[in-house]
Amino acid sequence: MPKIDLSKIPFRNGSGYPGKLARAGDDRYVQPLGDANGLTQFGVNIVRLEPNGLSSLRHYHMEQDEFAIMLSGKCVLIDDDGEHEMLPGDCAAWPAGDANGHHLVNKTDAPASFLVVGTRTPTETGYYSDIDMMVKFEGDDFRFTRKDGSPLTADQIGDDND
Amino acid sequence: MPKIDLSKIPFRNGSGYPGKLARAGDDRYVQPLGDANGLTQFGVNIVRLEPNGLSSLRHYHMEQDEFAIMLSGKCVLIDDDGEHEMLPGDCAAWPAGDANGHHLVNKTDAPASFLVVGTRTPTETGYYSDIDMMVKFEGDDFRFTRKDGSPLTADQIGDDND
Repeated sequence: MPKIDLSKIPFRNGSGYPGKLARAGDDRYVQPLGDANGLTQFGVNIVRLEPNGLSSLRHYHMEQDEFAIMLSGKCVLIDDDGEHEMLPGDCAAWPAGDANGHHLVNKTDAPASFLVVGTRTPTETGYYSDIDMMVKFEGDDFRFTRKDGSPLTADQIGDDND
Repeated sequence: MPKIDLSKIPFRNGSGYPGKLARAGDDRYVQPLGDANGLTQFGVNIVRLEPNGLSSLRHYHMEQDEFAIMLSGKCVLIDDDGEHEMLPGDCAAWPAGDANGHHLVNKTDAPASFLVVGTRTPTETGYYSDIDMMVKFEGDDFRFTRKDGSPLTADQIGDDND
């Protein structure tokens, strides 16, 4: 059934960032529409950001195109060029390899939501613009390190890694 | 600049279908957001359907995932299972190779719009559910034939091919 019953796809909260960085996902709720409906070539998620929520740590992708359209509420798109207001219907596109790190932040007192699309690729490298971190993944194996490939340290992620 | 200035991307009208079948695009206006902003791995279009407009002839893709979300107005999604009302926020997903031909039709008296995403692949084959036609393309070369590969005939597309 191609029409999606959105009520049947649960939102998941949180993030997969290591250690204390995982808190960046505390106010983010992701509803994976594509995965739940058999799409394998790109991911499609509805993301709801509660007040103070972040779409992600500010980052860019080396191999994957990314696109977003605002659905409700108001966010700011923060990138190397500053802050850009995003209202329902506003769109943004980030070609693979464009080193302009970006994220969406909800600075309002109400929830906001957007739909985001990203290519699925067998491997990927992402860089985080505001901290010394990169991610490499292959299949389901995610590995976060410093940008030179060395391990993240306790001052970056805490020492309990929870 | 990742945030997209939608006012700078013109809508294009019509379709690339052969001969008289091209009229299927008469009430369809397409704004190519992805192409205009450097995305190459998937296409992202806003499509506006005027009353009686069709998203396409009813079809399915063999190699490309496809996804749509309604933005404004009301359409019906027509597929092998019948008609499904699509209102703003409603979504649909069509995995590559799923032979459930589909299109969106605006049966109302007001414009309707949706955002559609489709993978870019080097080659593609599409089949049209209600007529004896397939399309194969490789790069920019589109070729419409009957499903057995033989040429379309005048009773299908007219004899002036305009």
